[in-house]
Amino acid sequence: MSRRIRRTPFTNKVEELGVSGFTVVNHMLLPKAFKKSVEEDYWHLKENVQMWDVSCQRQVQIEGPDAELLIQKMTPRKITDMKVGKCLYIPLIDENAGMINDPVLLKVDENKFWLSIADSDILLWSKGISLGLGLNVKIDEPDIYPLAVQGPKAEDLLVSVFGEKIRTIKFYNFGFFNFHGTQQVIARAGYSKQGGFEIYFNGYELGEILWDTIWEAGKKFNISPGCPNLIERIEGGLMSYGNDFTSENNPLECNLEKFCTEDVSHDFIGKNALNKIRKQGVKQKIRGIIFDGGPCPTCAKPFPVFKDKTQIGQITSGIYSPRIKKNVGLSMILKDYWNIGQEVKVHTPDDIMRTGTITSLPFPK
Amino acid sequence: MSRRIRRTPFTNKVEELGVSGFTVVNHMLLPKAFKKSVEEDYWHLKENVQMWDVSCQRQVQIEGPDAELLIQKMTPRKITDMKVGKCLYIPLIDENAGMINDPVLLKVDENKFWLSIADSDILLWSKGISLGLGLNVKIDEPDIYPLAVQGPKAEDLLVSVFGEKIRTIKFYNFGFFNFHGTQQVIARAGYSKQGGFEIYFNGYELGEILWDTIWEAGKKFNISPGCPNLIERIEGGLMSYGNDFTSENNPLECNLEKFCTEDVSHDFIGKNALNKIRKQGVKQKIRGIIFDGGPCPTCAKPFPVFKDKTQIGQITSGIYSPRIKKNVGLSMILKDYWNIGQEVKVHTPDDIMRTGTITSLPFPK
Repeated sequence: MSRRIRRTPFTNKVEELGVSGFTVVNHMLLPKAFKKSVEEDYWHLKENVQMWDVSCQRQVQIEGPDAELLIQKMTPRKITDMKVGKCLYIPLIDENAGMINDPVLLKVDENKFWLSIADSDILLWSKGISLGLGLNVKIDEPDIYPLAVQGPKAEDLLVSVFGEKIRTIKFYNFGFFNFHGTQQVIARAGYSKQGGFEIYFNGYELGEILWDTIWEAGKKFNISPGCPNLIERIEGGLMSYGNDFTSENNPLECNLEKFCTEDVSHDFIGKNALNKIRKQGVKQKIRGIIFDGGPCPTCAKPFPVFKDKTQIGQITSGIYSPRIKKNVGLSMILKDYWNIGQEVKVHTPDDIMRTGTITSLPFPK
Repeated sequence: MSRRIRRTPFTNKVEELGVSGFTVVNHMLLPKAFKKSVEEDYWHLKENVQMWDVSCQRQVQIEGPDAELLIQKMTPRKITDMKVGKCLYIPLIDENAGMINDPVLLKVDENKFWLSIADSDILLWSKGISLGLGLNVKIDEPDIYPLAVQGPKAEDLLVSVFGEKIRTIKFYNFGFFNFHGTQQVIARAGYSKQGGFEIYFNGYELGEILWDTIWEAGKKFNISPGCPNLIERIEGGLMSYGNDFTSENNPLECNLEKFCTEDVSHDFIGKNALNKIRKQGVKQKIRGIIFDGGPCPTCAKPFPVFKDKTQIGQITSGIYSPRIKKNVGLSMILKDYWNIGQEVKVHTPDDIMRTGTITSLPFPK
């Protein structure tokens, strides 16, 4: 423990509630598990409501006359018709069209945006570009600590705290809400497919009051502390930057074509590289795999995937799904083998060669 | 465990040797402790030799005709008379003169440099600036995994592996050495004050052979696996970026004046801000504190430091020194209180108010 790995306004609370481990994202603590097993947590999330300390989704705030111009330089997705109150998922790429992050972009005001980032220092990336280009923007990491409220009962819970206006927020939109004299941004979004909200909380000192308020109101909704659930995330096809894809991968390999606007007037870093890849076609793509042989071991290192004796890809996230009653995995698979229904073999660290099938993402219901 | 937090060529080896915990630096595992206590490790390091997996000190390789120009933009230290084979400690600052890293710079060839970084994504920072300015450089993170060999017996150990030429490497210089047909950079440097070397190892697959070779040769020198030792680091005044100083601090506050060249012809990001701070004088500085009251608790959160009832600073790294037989700490202290000999009070999490004295750094022998 060191100040280098930052605590959040909610860390005391998750410790009180028995957090059993943390990981590190953006130099900040992210709870990894509480008292329940991953499977118990999975069912709880699908049926109830959970509160997640996802403060590690740091915000990079870009404001000023050139804010939109800078963001357009950073992403192949065109954002010029974005309205205040909107969220957009945007791939960020480097000069080789390699993925360097996949944040949610929030337009919080005219000429003021937040990038809600995955695990890489986009604060430094955006500042570097801006200083090099001499743009008129101010870039910093404001004191904002996202708190996710996820699960089918999330809406009713937040209505009981913030009022009926919560119901009017559309998916990937946000509104402004009062809390103890502060103004809070609440978006209908989050890193699960069970529905829910993210409170982009500002006001460090009020953090425990916010946590306690939602916790108390949540008791009648069977609230539990939680964190992104590996089974639910894989089933939902939600990728994790740094694990399921890295800067070695381009957005087309990651099934992000629809977030790469084809428009000759839109200029961005990596445009030439991306156009070249698009023209040539990609060599591999992220696919789902359903594979058998009983619950697989922890996927701490990628599981190699084979067709006959040829390695054709690897599973980077894999776990047993209690719903599908087989293992599920997210994998990067070579072109000749990525068709839905393709039979493959998966080699797990218990040295079992398991039979699997390529599927679409998210996994079929 | 996830591929997002990267393993190193030596991770299997440190696991075999009983590593009891890891931390995360630059999205990569850094061993935190082995079987011995911090104090046992401290004495071992001061008397013998240890091998540390510090692969997380990632290298940012900048090469090309504009490489030196780009690095000069990034640091207040003038590097234009640097020779191949030299290492330099350089502060990196942003447009506000806030510290964003404090790497060791290695000049590995004309127009080719490595930045051996602390915990922030300088790859993105340097690429961003370069793309913005349109510089002619190639920037990437090569497959280099530093392995530190530290302690008074490090030189004899490495001579037994790489030959007498090891003795000719001066402090903060490096040479090229053969290992199984590969060429390895070995520098006399490292994150301790006990003497030693860092092998900037390239050739992932050879990693375990390198580890085993040094381990076998090290047995007669009483080698042990290890990691940066908190007691030794604090006594030596070695700061940790993100903990003892952050982007909120400028290099003058961190006692890095001597690495901030005053030269009107040298232009760099943050120059105006740094000049302004220099003119006005800094408000606080990093100092040592020796404080009593028996071994202090773990410094997971900063210990506030008081003079009477006024908080005058905080200790960010603190531990009991078995040599000094008091607690030692690294602290940021306000100007009116930073004189050597100043008496202060330190409030530790066991709710004891301890008496302390400001000292110079490194701590007196």
